[in-house]
Amino acid sequence: MRPLPEPIEALVARLVRLPGIGRRSAQRLAFHLAREKPDELAGLARAIEALPRELQTCTRCGNLAAGELCAICSDPRRDESVICVVEQPENVAAIERSGAFRGVYHVLGGAISPLRSVGPDDLRIDGLLERVAAGGVEEVILATNPTVEGEATALYIARQLRDRPVRVTRPATGIPVGGDLEYVDEATLSRALAARRGVLDED
Amino acid sequence: MRPLPEPIEALVARLVRLPGIGRRSAQRLAFHLAREKPDELAGLARAIEALPRELQTCTRCGNLAAGELCAICSDPRRDESVICVVEQPENVAAIERSGAFRGVYHVLGGAISPLRSVGPDDLRIDGLLERVAAGGVEEVILATNPTVEGEATALYIARQLRDRPVRVTRPATGIPVGGDLEYVDEATLSRALAARRGVLDED
Repeated sequence: MRPLPEPIEALVARLVRLPGIGRRSAQRLAFHLAREKPDELAGLARAIEALPRELQTCTRCGNLAAGELCAICSDPRRDESVICVVEQPENVAAIERSGAFRGVYHVLGGAISPLRSVGPDDLRIDGLLERVAAGGVEEVILATNPTVEGEATALYIARQLRDRPVRVTRPATGIPVGGDLEYVDEATLSRALAARRGVLDED
Repeated sequence: MRPLPEPIEALVARLVRLPGIGRRSAQRLAFHLAREKPDELAGLARAIEALPRELQTCTRCGNLAAGELCAICSDPRRDESVICVVEQPENVAAIERSGAFRGVYHVLGGAISPLRSVGPDDLRIDGLLERVAAGGVEEVILATNPTVEGEATALYIARQLRDRPVRVTRPATGIPVGGDLEYVDEATLSRALAARRGVLDED
């Protein structure tokens, strides 16, 4: 087996690190890009490089933002009495696509995972507790992923909020266990949000 | 449905133009990249932008090359009496992976397609005819894709070579009709190359 031309191999080595891109897909992408016009390639390169410069983290909820606050936190029509807690910004995008939620979000930045050395202090949990302590919050929906890590994170947060005058819920089963919240279809997400239940009720 | 942050949307718009990347995959990639370190993003951007600068077209066969000749044309161990004609450089990579071919290649740069206004003059067909006319070539394997365009291209080239003292073949059936040569598995490719037949014999 002959190696690919070096510039193609260098790009393939970068592309295979992306989620859902295997070596075969990476090669297909690299050869496709090798046929593209320099202008198109420069545009794609600029769009990638611009991300850290142009994206900020919302100082209130941790979502991706173009300024200090994200588009949702700066929207006066959102119901600030309900906070939906998710792991990552793409989970916000998925729930927004479902159109089933009019409250606000809190983006943790991940889930508690001893295997990956991610503890509660590595996530935006303190910020969430401060928002609840500041008052005006009636319900916290723990929409972390239905994985071991996501469930552990939800339980941890539920316990932290136990003595607060706030309802703590989790979206209903309906989200496939072991799946990734980002790939759940809109109808399932809508149903799961509508049928949410108290976290500690079921213990 | 709330739009994504602008830098994410700008990147998604670029990514969906790539083969095999739908809107959902593009969003997943963009959100993943938004979490990457600036160094990693700059490296990926550089690898993309470098392609037109660092890649050349082999002056003999049309394959991608780091210099004037590609790695195969500059390898003295390859059998120059057999030329395998393919549409694109990724097809060379696929056949090389099969390990079933020790000859050299000719990369057309596409296939004849009236729908896309691609005629024989838009492909590297003259270069192929010149290589055959120069002598020393005993067989031309027409390994264009098994699509309408690929078959038409093979037939066109076979007719151009009809009066030349050269055997003109096509890989055997075994490659799924309507498929893309790049995705054929190595075993199928090996078998198809071994069972190749004359193109005009079957008319």
